[in-house]
Amino acid sequence: MNSFGNILKLTTFGESHGPAIGGILDGYPAGIQIDLDFIQKELNRRRPGQSQLTTSRQEKDAIEILSGTFEGKSTGAPIAFIVRNENQHSTDYSDLKDLFRPSHADYTYDAKYGIRDYTGGGRSSARTTIAQVAGGAFAKLILQQIGVKIYAYTSQVGNIATAKQYTELDLTTTDSNPVRCPDPEVAEKMATLIQQTKEEGDTIGGIISCVIQNCPVGLGEPQFGKLHAQLAHAMLSINAAKGFEYGCGFEGVTKKGSELNDIFFNDNGTIRTKTNNSGGIQGGISNGEDIFFRVAFKAVPTLLKDQQTINKEGESIVFKARGRHDPCVLPRAVPIVEAMAALTIADAYLIAKTGNANQK
Amino acid sequence: MNSFGNILKLTTFGESHGPAIGGILDGYPAGIQIDLDFIQKELNRRRPGQSQLTTSRQEKDAIEILSGTFEGKSTGAPIAFIVRNENQHSTDYSDLKDLFRPSHADYTYDAKYGIRDYTGGGRSSARTTIAQVAGGAFAKLILQQIGVKIYAYTSQVGNIATAKQYTELDLTTTDSNPVRCPDPEVAEKMATLIQQTKEEGDTIGGIISCVIQNCPVGLGEPQFGKLHAQLAHAMLSINAAKGFEYGCGFEGVTKKGSELNDIFFNDNGTIRTKTNNSGGIQGGISNGEDIFFRVAFKAVPTLLKDQQTINKEGESIVFKARGRHDPCVLPRAVPIVEAMAALTIADAYLIAKTGNANQK
Amino acid sequence: MNSFGNILKLTTFGESHGPAIGGILDGYPAGIQIDLDFIQKELNRRRPGQSQLTTSRQEKDAIEILSGTFEGKSTGAPIAFIVRNENQHSTDYSDLKDLFRPSHADYTYDAKYGIRDYTGGGRSSARTTIAQVAGGAFAKLILQQIGVKIYAYTSQVGNIATAKQYTELDLTTTDSNPVRCPDPEVAEKMATLIQQTKEEGDTIGGIISCVIQNCPVGLGEPQFGKLHAQLAHAMLSINAAKGFEYGCGFEGVTKKGSELNDIFFNDNGTIRTKTNNSGGIQGGISNGEDIFFRVAFKAVPTLLKDQQTINKEGESIVFKARGRHDPCVLPRAVPIVEAMAALTIADAYLIAKTGNANQK
Amino acid sequence: MNSFGNILKLTTFGESHGPAIGGILDGYPAGIQIDLDFIQKELNRRRPGQSQLTTSRQEKDAIEILSGTFEGKSTGAPIAFIVRNENQHSTDYSDLKDLFRPSHADYTYDAKYGIRDYTGGGRSSARTTIAQVAGGAFAKLILQQIGVKIYAYTSQVGNIATAKQYTELDLTTTDSNPVRCPDPEVAEKMATLIQQTKEEGDTIGGIISCVIQNCPVGLGEPQFGKLHAQLAHAMLSINAAKGFEYGCGFEGVTKKGSELNDIFFNDNGTIRTKTNNSGGIQGGISNGEDIFFRVAFKAVPTLLKDQQTINKEGESIVFKARGRHDPCVLPRAVPIVEAMAALTIADAYLIAKTGNANQK
Repeated sequence: MNSFGNILKLTTFGESHGPAIGGILDGYPAGIQIDLDFIQKELNRRRPGQSQLTTSRQEKDAIEILSGTFEGKSTGAPIAFIVRNENQHSTDYSDLKDLFRPSHADYTYDAKYGIRDYTGGGRSSARTTIAQVAGGAFAKLILQQIGVKIYAYTSQVGNIATAKQYTELDLTTTDSNPVRCPDPEVAEKMATLIQQTKEEGDTIGGIISCVIQNCPVGLGEPQFGKLHAQLAHAMLSINAAKGFEYGCGFEGVTKKGSELNDIFFNDNGTIRTKTNNSGGIQGGISNGEDIFFRVAFKAVPTLLKDQQTINKEGESIVFKARGRHDPCVLPRAVPIVEAMAALTIADAYLIAKTGNANQK
Repeated sequence: MNSFGNILKLTTFGESHGPAIGGILDGYPAGIQIDLDFIQKELNRRRPGQSQLTTSRQEKDAIEILSGTFEGKSTGAPIAFIVRNENQHSTDYSDLKDLFRPSHADYTYDAKYGIRDYTGGGRSSARTTIAQVAGGAFAKLILQQIGVKIYAYTSQVGNIATAKQYTELDLTTTDSNPVRCPDPEVAEKMATLIQQTKEEGDTIGGIISCVIQNCPVGLGEPQFGKLHAQLAHAMLSINAAKGFEYGCGFEGVTKKGSELNDIFFNDNGTIRTKTNNSGGIQGGISNGEDIFFRVAFKAVPTLLKDQQTINKEGESIVFKARGRHDPCVLPRAVPIVEAMAALTIADAYLIAKTGNANQK
Repeated sequence: MNSFGNILKLTTFGESHGPAIGGILDGYPAGIQIDLDFIQKELNRRRPGQSQLTTSRQEKDAIEILSGTFEGKSTGAPIAFIVRNENQHSTDYSDLKDLFRPSHADYTYDAKYGIRDYTGGGRSSARTTIAQVAGGAFAKLILQQIGVKIYAYTSQVGNIATAKQYTELDLTTTDSNPVRCPDPEVAEKMATLIQQTKEEGDTIGGIISCVIQNCPVGLGEPQFGKLHAQLAHAMLSINAAKGFEYGCGFEGVTKKGSELNDIFFNDNGTIRTKTNNSGGIQGGISNGEDIFFRVAFKAVPTLLKDQQTINKEGESIVFKARGRHDPCVLPRAVPIVEAMAALTIADAYLIAKTGNANQK
Repeated sequence: MNSFGNILKLTTFGESHGPAIGGILDGYPAGIQIDLDFIQKELNRRRPGQSQLTTSRQEKDAIEILSGTFEGKSTGAPIAFIVRNENQHSTDYSDLKDLFRPSHADYTYDAKYGIRDYTGGGRSSARTTIAQVAGGAFAKLILQQIGVKIYAYTSQVGNIATAKQYTELDLTTTDSNPVRCPDPEVAEKMATLIQQTKEEGDTIGGIISCVIQNCPVGLGEPQFGKLHAQLAHAMLSINAAKGFEYGCGFEGVTKKGSELNDIFFNDNGTIRTKTNNSGGIQGGISNGEDIFFRVAFKAVPTLLKDQQTINKEGESIVFKARGRHDPCVLPRAVPIVEAMAALTIADAYLIAKTGNANQK
């Protein structure tokens, strides 16, 4: 259950304070040029310490590829990669040993497994998303070959949201500010809110929007491999995600069918739709229009202020987190959303090759 | 890709106008008492023709069990079931052969497969949810043994929503009105809206809320088998679903960590939380509190009014649906949401049996 | 665990005396011409009552296709099929209820599941191979498109074996005698042995050989999807199979590397090997030479003579089977071996489409 | 396709001359004491350089655990492990770049993937079995808890075979001679044959027998998860394996049902069989008797003598392997057979926990 994908399958491992985080990417097609710089850059986008708005922890997160490539290309063999943890033994975590931090996974892991790696989040740590980002970077290399582009960005932090549709934004500018919101004025307000929240020792959530452009027609497999169902699974596998919607989403429920239906037209020989309430997916299969979706992230639970909780014995205690933590995960979650989207689309792309006996 | 689940695996088949709809449920534990009446009743809840608010088509949807039970109990062998289609050859669908209905799966199926069963929706028909409901009914029988209860209900139709939390509602009354909303006054307004929409030849969407009570602690598998990720996958596998959120959901993104954190307390020896913004799942694993989530459904695209579209040749044409169709799928989707939830939870329950070497 | 295959996945169901045997074939590519006559003929090859050498039970084993085809072609949707059991309630099996027949699955099913369908074999009945043969027939239709041919035949019954290599035999004549051995003189001796064994109320085993010709180069996936490992899994899923070997097999263990190595040569632009001790598979991947393997089948345990055994209470009793049974399963197992081989190769063929980014 | 198992799933990676070999073991139950010495000892049994009979290459094969354990116990998180390759850049392999070594995977990898890691075997190298042995060692730790014992041994090399049944041998003495045959006199003859073969620059095959004792009743899942089918899949995933048989195997085909049937008897309250032609598995499910099977290994193709072959251009060339190679893989394959058996049984043991609703 630490695997994602059907043909292109990422299996991940690692705890925040163990020796390493990593994964194996199986089913990766042979012959793809492996751009290591690109992969490291994707990891750098996720890395802590990028700005005042994220945790000030400094980790290089340098990736090592252990297999599956030869002379710069993929060979069809599984690609394994690891990122060593540097801060492995830096802190004494014994005070966390017996207590259940509120809204963390301490209690549920303990109840399920009867044992828990209490050092810094263990397997439930957001640090494990390193493996998702690395896997996604490899998937992006597949998608680059067929021209697919994936753009995620922070569209809301707390109650500050951009009012613009993605079509009104220049999505190539997302990384130009630390919030990763391509609406610069809104980005500044978001930054201020995050800064304030940080000063309060508190945390704040938000929404990441994602657009997939130039996706081939025909990806997605009815009935339980619907493209949007797989995207939902992917997105809700990211730590702190609480919701997923695509196309007209939750807002669309108030609209009538006559308002939502996307009318087909003939665009010089290409079949297109005039509107895109479908979000690029119809009947679970991509239709060639932009795929877009939104993911809700809650405020992460690690607060730098006192909180009430209980310990294993059921005794009430007061707890306050130490160390450096993200007041808002959204900026660093942008590359994670893109990574999981890339894994989903690349997998669907490979599977689609098998479904039509008459397709060249 | 027509299978759902890991240990308890439902594989479905069937088209709306083929001979039958059905499925195979593999991994079903031996020794469960199979209550056929209960299973048929669940199918009846999904059946068309239940009220003025749903399609007036009349189909018995009688289930036949083909295997896997003996003397009223499950044997551990796969359970196969079929429901014959009665209206198989009732209509001439040749007018649909070459056109792409707006926001249906006509175009994407055609583009993906190069062939399409154009009679009444084929594999993309909502009628295929029969197999999901039947499979879910079997899953409910497993869950009954351990006391798990699943309650879905219509919480919003168009812009009419109940203002009450699920805790303020009597969820056992959901089926007492045709909308399946346990807030009777709101249900009446919803019914009126659906009736009006029907008269316009239009359709309307809404939201189904679902609560899972008495779920054992410890279900769900990090990292890609998180309970909420599997629920999201399940829900977005239902036709017309556009979004999923659990716990504090999309609304929670505006809240701070200090507002959202669920404080643990010792409830006479049971570890519980004072609030439940987590929605009963922490770190992807159930914590024993109520699991609750919401699913957005769009207005279905079949309108009894003229619509513009194109045919295979790319020529513009005007199209108007014939026959009897649901103006709003929410009432009939309630048992489908419950079914997919039951399959998800029962599967997670079985897997959880394998994860802890010291568990009795 | 009632599924076989990765992309092309057959899930089977059914007990010998339940309502029906059948399956769902998922991942079947769209656009394949579905020749129903061919599929029924394959089932007829497995059917009882074909000759004096097999059980005299008469069952039509008529297949009904429930989904996945339209206007004679596959649509990409899952193909479901059933074969009704005709003799469903013909006999009283209550005498089998509490006893464990020697070398049957009675005891193990009972111990595993705590319940057992004791009517005529239940899920462990050889009748369930109907679903394998039907699934394999569909797979053969895929393989016909690319010219792959699969020939299984009876090469040994008891201690009577053909001395000829498959290359010395006309494999198109296999069905011309009831033993399905394409060496007519040996076939007659085999028939005599089976007839004698039958008269003794006893049973006898044998070996089925199988050749796959014109298999594309490049099928099979290292490391755990090696083509021969999947064939072994397939063959040992057939009732009564006790062994599998391919290429030089068990006999080859006495040979030296210098005797076994298959020397490559350039056959007018095609890379071929002078010998074929590899059995057409090198490193788990097909190399374009004939794939050949052998499957050992034991004598089936149902004897028409007294046998000692015990009942559930552990009391000794004497038991004698009633009814009509096969004295030797080999003739009827020939189409089953072919079917499982076809499923394996067709699945590998589809997966191979995803593995090379530069392949047209 | 580099994964093995259903619940307990081993995914492997690595090439012989890449940075490392390793794997991820997912679904490993929490709470198992992880004996690292034991795991390293299992790897040492597979390591080259153990005796005159194996390759004289010296590699430490030291394992590093990267995740999934905490304070000496498994946590339920995936266990990742790596073994660094020491001889990574020791040799110039450019002479292998364009030629296809006879009966190696050079040609098939090249044809399938269009690219090949030609340094020392790449992904098809026997060195990759490190990951199988490591994974199997972890599986053995699970099985130790329930008393299951697995004994593999060399029962035949070339035409020298022990005449003794496993029941006549002391299986705890297997490792006391370099051939790993617990029949000391035969072991010496085997050693002499291997030594002679080595001096000829040739290689020789053989048979490994394996016995699994004290296996719980009820493991294995009809129909495609039959315990022996999964064992066959496991064994034929090992490099150079050409055949698998269990119980009466190929030899049993000459016997009649009345000779083969295993008669049940009541052994002081335990149901047992007087003989064990079934090999401990009936209907695909373990019956509590010893499980035993045999695996045929061919002579490996790397010869220290001239061989004819062709290069990529199809030109004939003469080729002679350099370096240090095993003249006979059997001794080192013994721990690999045990490892794959352990993975199979441990997986079946975990799955069996989910199949019976009334089992404690």
